[in-house]
Amino acid sequence: MPPPAFALDPQLAVDTVFVGDLALCRVLLVKDANYPWILLVPRRPNVTEMIDLPDHEQIQLAGEVAVASRALRAITGCEKLNIASLGNVVSQLHIHVIGRRPGDKAWPKAVWGAALPTVYDPNQRDELATALRHALKINAIAK
Amino acid sequence: MPPPAFALDPQLAVDTVFVGDLALCRVLLVKDANYPWILLVPRRPNVTEMIDLPDHEQIQLAGEVAVASRALRAITGCEKLNIASLGNVVSQLHIHVIGRRPGDKAWPKAVWGAALPTVYDPNQRDELATALRHALKINAIAK
Repeated sequence: MPPPAFALDPQLAVDTVFVGDLALCRVLLVKDANYPWILLVPRRPNVTEMIDLPDHEQIQLAGEVAVASRALRAITGCEKLNIASLGNVVSQLHIHVIGRRPGDKAWPKAVWGAALPTVYDPNQRDELATALRHALKINAIAK
Repeated sequence: MPPPAFALDPQLAVDTVFVGDLALCRVLLVKDANYPWILLVPRRPNVTEMIDLPDHEQIQLAGEVAVASRALRAITGCEKLNIASLGNVVSQLHIHVIGRRPGDKAWPKAVWGAALPTVYDPNQRDELATALRHALKINAIAK
């Protein structure tokens, strides 16, 4: 029997647009123009906690979070990064990487539950996704 | 001139009790009995973001977060871990490792701003700190 395949959680799929795939993680842009906000989802089935990944993939994940953090900060000029693995509602492991700045819709609070999402201007959303693909050296084709 | 020394942010000091020092991070127990909640603070001066640490210390940090996560889950039997680096209010880099369970004061929301802290019974707080020291193989003496 083949091992179970990775499938993106349906709620995460609804809430995001696809950016691209790093070696371990799928990169997604959250549909909320209030903050530049991406998710990293390790493409592994049935994983809920970072410590459920084997050690070498935990290190890979830390590296991909760092690369995504640097890209998001370089592109947006955000003043602070918020990085989190919560998963109380959607259990599939996903890491939030959010660019924050004083005066944004939730500042200085955490973003979860703080403000209703703002719909992106489609051009602005696509520009950000494209800039992320360029910075992360990935394209819009799933691995 | 010697390099600047690490000093714990005064607000973090007020909000926590000292557990012990891992190779990189100071481990602190947050004074809020609503959730088993620890902080890991890399003992490095003037660091705000995980990506401000050199690469080898980012990997060390990921390992210490994993060790602390396993310890907290083993001791408390929590169902979910919430792990986050936010720092919008206190800029000194600190990683939250929080044990969550359905029915806790904030479930399923994030804990920040969700409920007023509950004061610990001192015995219960000391028992948790002692169990953490045992699991993490550290003692109550700062390195």
